[in-house]
Amino acid sequence: MELTFTKMQGAGNDYVYINGFDYTITPSQAEKLAVKLADRHFGIGGDGLVIIDPSDIADAKMRMYNADGSEGNMCGNAIRCVAKYVYDYAIAKKEQLMIESKSGVKPITVSTENNQVHLATVEMGAANFNTPAIPVLTEETQWIDYSFETAHGVYQVTALSMGNPHLVTFMKDIHTLRLSEIGPLFEHHSAFPERINTEFVEVHSNQEISMRVWERGSGETLACGTGACAAVAAAVVNGYCLSDSWVTVHLLGGDLEIYYSKEQIYMKGPAVEVFTGQLNISL
Amino acid sequence: MELTFTKMQGAGNDYVYINGFDYTITPSQAEKLAVKLADRHFGIGGDGLVIIDPSDIADAKMRMYNADGSEGNMCGNAIRCVAKYVYDYAIAKKEQLMIESKSGVKPITVSTENNQVHLATVEMGAANFNTPAIPVLTEETQWIDYSFETAHGVYQVTALSMGNPHLVTFMKDIHTLRLSEIGPLFEHHSAFPERINTEFVEVHSNQEISMRVWERGSGETLACGTGACAAVAAAVVNGYCLSDSWVTVHLLGGDLEIYYSKEQIYMKGPAVEVFTGQLNISL
Repeated sequence: MELTFTKMQGAGNDYVYINGFDYTITPSQAEKLAVKLADRHFGIGGDGLVIIDPSDIADAKMRMYNADGSEGNMCGNAIRCVAKYVYDYAIAKKEQLMIESKSGVKPITVSTENNQVHLATVEMGAANFNTPAIPVLTEETQWIDYSFETAHGVYQVTALSMGNPHLVTFMKDIHTLRLSEIGPLFEHHSAFPERINTEFVEVHSNQEISMRVWERGSGETLACGTGACAAVAAAVVNGYCLSDSWVTVHLLGGDLEIYYSKEQIYMKGPAVEVFTGQLNISL
Repeated sequence: MELTFTKMQGAGNDYVYINGFDYTITPSQAEKLAVKLADRHFGIGGDGLVIIDPSDIADAKMRMYNADGSEGNMCGNAIRCVAKYVYDYAIAKKEQLMIESKSGVKPITVSTENNQVHLATVEMGAANFNTPAIPVLTEETQWIDYSFETAHGVYQVTALSMGNPHLVTFMKDIHTLRLSEIGPLFEHHSAFPERINTEFVEVHSNQEISMRVWERGSGETLACGTGACAAVAAAVVNGYCLSDSWVTVHLLGGDLEIYYSKEQIYMKGPAVEVFTGQLNISL
């Protein structure tokens, strides 16, 4: 069959998107398709596959599959692209969209130009600084500006959960950092039974920070939505940024805007359609 | 403008192909397009861009641009895909095609199934074992089973030119080889003023070999057409394979068939269309 698809990216997180209103794709078909289509030399290429399906409780439902075929959780950079697709292709022409995901129904607010979405704002939930919830194996109830001992020396770190575990370190110059050496050391430290995502953050002002991220299982990536939220949450509790105001986060793949409040963190960022395509494939 | 393109691969060497019969693209536009389109996260993704233009002296002319925008030389894996495109899209519906490239006009023989090309055979020229022609800085006129001293110990190597420089080493097990350590050592050795492409080859029989390749400037790649020719040429002069017969070469990206004779080496391999697409771009 000829399959039509759309390639989109948000801050460099790129996925192949398939319209589940046009095609019925079972979970086992999707797993195989993800492996095939995400291959960057023999397939379309991408961080994975997203299928945009009809939903009984929202405007659309997203199913995410990683490049290895495993089903993924919600991804803040991908859900913005889902919202763009739902709006641009008139599945639901509304500026307030509800998108169902494996992590529940997420409200998304879109900004449009020439009747197409270019930015979307996502509710990312609240940060949780309690160490058992992250989880961190420690006697302390929180790690905020905590002196963390590693084989590479002592780092001042802040640990939190954004649904997934994060460890944030503030430093002067993140670009000379040897992340490929330090990232695995943090990721596999015995304090983190579920491993950890690590953000190294440089503060420019209370409205602007830069960061690099080491994602558990993936290594350094161009952008991580929950990581950008974690960096700003940590910046607020450490006194670098203000609560209830927007902070610009520069990542390798582009910029995200994060709004931190105790009850809810918002992430605003780009959603870009790169190309559309057709390929012949048997499901 | 909306630009239509085709993504094709041969043994894992993947390029974005644009039909120059439909679009006029200047060299400076092509350089910028290559950088933009070859980007695997923000563009279409590929090893580079190939434009298939009208030719005054052949069925079509190929222009190749690397992912960094520099103009490339002929690539044996890409020219097979050019031949497939020329045949499948009826630019010239002939089983013997002439394709003009920066390295001259190359005759290509195609094999078809259901009126589409799936294999193509390319004349790759002759191997040259003379050290000044490769070039290798040495007092020897040839390096055939030569004891080559490196910081990692002594290797038995054979040096030759296929238009570009190659160094071939035969060994028992190429899959446990730490190529990322040894490749740069060979590439930047003072004996090779223009650096060198390095092939590590395991001989299974006189009709079948496996290889891994370290390309100068690129590192380990999935496949290298001239490298596969160099491996078979070295296997013949070292007595592992026979002249004037076909040898199957297993590369990480797939198989190539190489026919060595003193005057001419032929390479037969797959040419695969992966998908077609459209993107909006200003040239």
